[in-house]
Order: sequence, then C-alpha cells, then structure tokens
Amino acid sequence: MNSVLKELQSNREMRIALDAMGGDFAPEEIIKGAHIAVKKKNVRIFLVGNQQILERELNALNITDEKLQIRGAEDIIKEGEHPAIAVMQRPNASVNVAAKIVKSGEADAMVSMGSTGAVMVSAMKAFGMMEGIERPIVGGPFLGFAPNTTVADLGANVDCKPRHLLGFALMGCVVARTLFGVANPTVALLSVGAEEGKGNNLVREAFPLLKNSGLNFIGNVEGNDIVNGKANVILCDGFVGNILVKFCEALGTTISHYLDASLKSYLSAVEINRITEELMTKTNYADSMGGGPIWGVNGVAIVGHGRAKADEVAKAITLAKIVVENNLIPEMQKELQKFRRLLTPNEKPD
Amino acid sequence: MNSVLKELQSNREMRIALDAMGGDFAPEEIIKGAHIAVKKKNVRIFLVGNQQILERELNALNITDEKLQIRGAEDIIKEGEHPAIAVMQRPNASVNVAAKIVKSGEADAMVSMGSTGAVMVSAMKAFGMMEGIERPIVGGPFLGFAPNTTVADLGANVDCKPRHLLGFALMGCVVARTLFGVANPTVALLSVGAEEGKGNNLVREAFPLLKNSGLNFIGNVEGNDIVNGKANVILCDGFVGNILVKFCEALGTTISHYLDASLKSYLSAVEINRITEELMTKTNYADSMGGGPIWGVNGVAIVGHGRAKADEVAKAITLAKIVVENNLIPEMQKELQKFRRLLTPNEKPD
Repeated sequence: MNSVLKELQSNREMRIALDAMGGDFAPEEIIKGAHIAVKKKNVRIFLVGNQQILERELNALNITDEKLQIRGAEDIIKEGEHPAIAVMQRPNASVNVAAKIVKSGEADAMVSMGSTGAVMVSAMKAFGMMEGIERPIVGGPFLGFAPNTTVADLGANVDCKPRHLLGFALMGCVVARTLFGVANPTVALLSVGAEEGKGNNLVREAFPLLKNSGLNFIGNVEGNDIVNGKANVILCDGFVGNILVKFCEALGTTISHYLDASLKSYLSAVEINRITEELMTKTNYADSMGGGPIWGVNGVAIVGHGRAKADEVAKAITLAKIVVENNLIPEMQKELQKFRRLLTPNEKPD
Repeated sequence: MNSVLKELQSNREMRIALDAMGGDFAPEEIIKGAHIAVKKKNVRIFLVGNQQILERELNALNITDEKLQIRGAEDIIKEGEHPAIAVMQRPNASVNVAAKIVKSGEADAMVSMGSTGAVMVSAMKAFGMMEGIERPIVGGPFLGFAPNTTVADLGANVDCKPRHLLGFALMGCVVARTLFGVANPTVALLSVGAEEGKGNNLVREAFPLLKNSGLNFIGNVEGNDIVNGKANVILCDGFVGNILVKFCEALGTTISHYLDASLKSYLSAVEINRITEELMTKTNYADSMGGGPIWGVNGVAIVGHGRAKADEVAKAITLAKIVVENNLIPEMQKELQKFRRLLTPNEKPD
C-alpha cells in the first residue's frame, strides 16, 4: 500500500532553488530541511530570500555547508496580502527569484512551502504554460489508502471544460507512469454513478472525449472509488477536488482526535501516537509526500504544505529531485503534443 | 455531539405506509423493523407489497400484530431495472402504492429502503412538488462528528442554478429548526475559499442572492468546515454532495478496517468492535439516523439505506413520525412561499 515513488540512482548533483521565506515556519524549518537534504542527497541548494534574515538564521542554527548558498531576494510578501496578486506585483519576492534561478538554468527545480497560488503564478510567469494547457494544475494521490490513485485537479481550475479534463488525464497518466511506475494507468471520471450518462454536464460531455482518446479509460467512478483506488488517474474539476482534499484532511484529523480519546484507557500515549500518526499520514497525505509538482508549466516547481517542518521540506526537495530525474516535464510536453488538436478550444475563449 | 432530533410526545397514532419490498434485505428485515416500531411507538403500519410473499414472511417470522396490516402491491421492480424508470412504468409497484396510501390520507408518511431515485419519483408523482422547487432534494447531516450540520443537495440535483441553492437553504433551515431545534440556523456556501468571490461560477453567482436573502448567511465555507460543523446548513450542488457522502462513508469503512488490524494486538475483539462501530456510526451517519426525508415534495417520504436491517428500518419509521409531528412539510411550504419570487426562474427553463 505504500507509495512507490521511483527514486533513481543518479550521480548528477541536483540543484534546487528553495524559497526560504515561504511557509508557516520559514525561514527556520526551511533551512533545517535544506540542511537535512544536502546531508542525505546529492543536492546543492540555493536558499532564496532576504540575505540578512537568512544569514542570521544560519548563524543561529549553527549551520555551514558549502552546498547551501544564500541567494538574495529582497521583497517580502506581507501577511494579509493576496499571495497570487502579490507575486505579480513583487518580482523580487523570494518565490519569483527562485523561479528565475530555474529559468536561467542555474537550478533544476524550485521548491516552496508558500501559498499554492503564489507558486503557480510565479512558475507560470517564469516557465510559461505547456502548449494546450491554460492554467496550472495541482494533482496527485491525496489519500494514503490509495497511494497509486492520482486525482486532478485539486485546486485552481474550478470551472472546467471537457478538454481541461482531458489535459488532466494526459498529465495524470504521465505522473502515474513516470513517478509511480504504473505501466498502463487506468483513467476514470469522478461522477455520481458508474454508467455512461450519469453525472453533471461536464462529466457527460467529457465522457465521449475520454472514451475515444486512446487512454485506458474505464468510465465513471464514484466518491467511494477514490478510497478504494479504483483507477490510477481520477478526473474532477478543481472545485470538487479541493473540497475533497480539505474534507479528507479534516476528517482524518478529527478521527485521530477521536481515537486519542477512545484509546486512552487502553493504550499508552506512545502506542496511541503510533496509530494516530499513521492515520494522519494516510489522510493528510500531501504532507507526508512533501508536496507535489505543479502540472502544466514548463519547469519543475514543487509546492509543499504551508505548515511543513524540516522533515517535510527535505521530502519536498527529494521529490523535486525525483521529478527532474524522471523527466516529468518533457514527458508531459510530449504527451500533450500528441493530443494538441483536442486540447485546443474550438469555441471562443471564455 | 449527538444528534438532537426533536421527538415530540404525542398521543396521536401515526400511520405509516412502509414499502416492504424495497431494500437489500426486504421483506424480512423490513417486516422485523416494522414489528420493532409498532411495539415501541404509537404507530400503525401498512406493509406494502406482494400479498402472498408478505403473508408467508409474517408466518415464517411468527409475527401477528393488529397494528401491522398488509396492503397488496402486485408489481415488483426486478433486479437490473432502472429504479426511477421502473417506478414510472409500474404504478402498482410497492413504492408507488405506499405513496398513494399517503396521498389518499390513509397514512401520514411513507417509508422505503428502496432506491433513492425510485422513492423520489414516486413521491413526486403522488404528492407533487412544492411551489418553486423543480426536483426533489436529499439533504441532512451526513457526518456524526457534525450532527447539527445539514448539507444539501446530496443527490439528484447535479447541475444547479443559484435559485436552486436558495431553495436548499430555505428547506435546510426548516430542517435545522424543526428537526434539530436550532433556533437561528447559520447558512453557508461550500466553496474553495472563505472570501466572497472564491469559488466556481455557481457559488459566485449564488453568494449575493444568499447574502441578501435575510437568512443567517455566513458566507463561504471549505471542505474541512463540514467536518468542523461551521454552519448549520451547508449548500452545494448534488454532484459535489453525492461524491462527498460516498467518499466519507468509504473512508470511514476503510479506517475501521485499518483499526481492526492495528488494534488487534492490543485490544479484545469486543473492545475493537465498540470503537470501530462508533466510528462507522459517525462516518456512515445516514444509516444510523435510519434515513432522511425527501425535501421539496408535498408529503412525507423517508428514504433509508438499501442495506438497512431491522433496527435501521425501525429508526426510519421513528424519523417519519418525528417529521410528521414537527410539521416539516407545511413549514417548508410556508418558507418557500415567502421567497416565491426569488425561486421562480427569470430565464427560460433549461
């Protein structure tokens, strides 16, 4: 049942631009995470952010490592600013500078624990969108009980057309193949009934498009089928996906608290903790993966959870390495190219 | 945290038309459930279905009670038939006959463990729709961790207009007030961000309508807020609602299995069972309530889970009694009447 992320053995040093100012526990936990990563993996990390703050933090933590290098980014996105808008207005914000370092070729990937919206916008601006894709996508497994089930979109694309779902399917299959080693991923539409014809307008219109796509399309699946991992790639608009992920995380957390209380008279705190932590890992799965790559942009951008601590930051850096080594971006570009005609809107843009 | 269903003390005998042929365990468990109900509550039950089958079953179960009376309904919906269509084509199917008994005034409410679609169609045909409502709605609390949070729609209305969500809100508030005793229920739109403007087209269009409705509207809530019970009435289209309920039930079941395995070495089977059963009650909550009333039809129709056994059937019968005694239907009609103008489409019907 465990995730089967394909980590390759590579001799090449991976260069990561890390947004050291993004996330609830920045910069301390970000720097600690970077330090864990450079000790364990063959990576070199640019810590991107305010020079003074980062120098002070490195000193305070007593960390010196020639593989950790500060890169100044003087603008700071303030508490209360809308992250995506602030990113547009502040080219020297750390997340933007990290993206530019990748764009220039100095780094292979960017990693940020900042807001998903901010990372999306900065990646979109720096790398550009893949042909046939209009907006960045967040996708991936979000439930540890179904680690080989990638769901997309989980975020930004709230009102979709059938061609958008086809795009999610194509990229999802590349993710399933390259990151999870699934040879011929099954694809399904998330709906309210298994039969063709069941669902809302979007699902009913997308069904024939997917059926005739040549993908390994198995039809509609229902809410329970996400839990049971019935398909490797499950498609929904970002409205449904985002609500599901947040519901799942909160339900996992609530059940963990419920177990804390129910098991108190039977088990030791350590034993209870082992059970509830495992449950949290399975229901707050993005945390345990360290984050996920943004889909649809021409470059590697990993976005992690805002509340990530050092261990998760290190995992996100490892994930960036895996994504680069498995050629996720070029593989996505190649796949989209094949379906170019179907991804291009026939109607006027809306 | 427990449900606070307002059961009134009434001297009046409640008359229930029970679809004895609907449900996975019909007729045996349905009859047993009816028998439990008549022994405990002041109810009289029409067992509606095939006369011969029901007589045989009553004999086999050795049940005789003057408050249980068979009413013949000779048509049977066969395995594999589309339930809602079959209901249209078979006026003498048990679910239709049950609805007609209510319509004629011989019974106060119908109860069925058959398919939700079938119950909706038969209730719609027999009772007619409330003014301003186009299609029946399924709503209610679906998570035992948030027993005072009614979510609608959970089923049939997959593509909605803002006015439909207003209808769900009005009826949801009546449910919260009359069934759960919430004096001034809070109402929220399920969305992907708390701020006004966040969400898909439907949510963004529905926001001002709800804001200006005079209801106790608190804005948007997110997926996690369902778990935390942030509002008493949470609105979504039936596509989102149906996926969420099925996801929730399956996740609860999967976590229960996970706990079975994790706790085996610590606790006795009886202790584990107590914990997992409680969890199942909380995550498969509609089962534990016995079912829910169909909203928007001019009569009381309770639909339960197909896999209901005797105890749940008895609960569904009690629920029917509560719904009738609390005047749910007249209260809904009155509330909808007030908002009549806003519920009527200005555009051409779609």
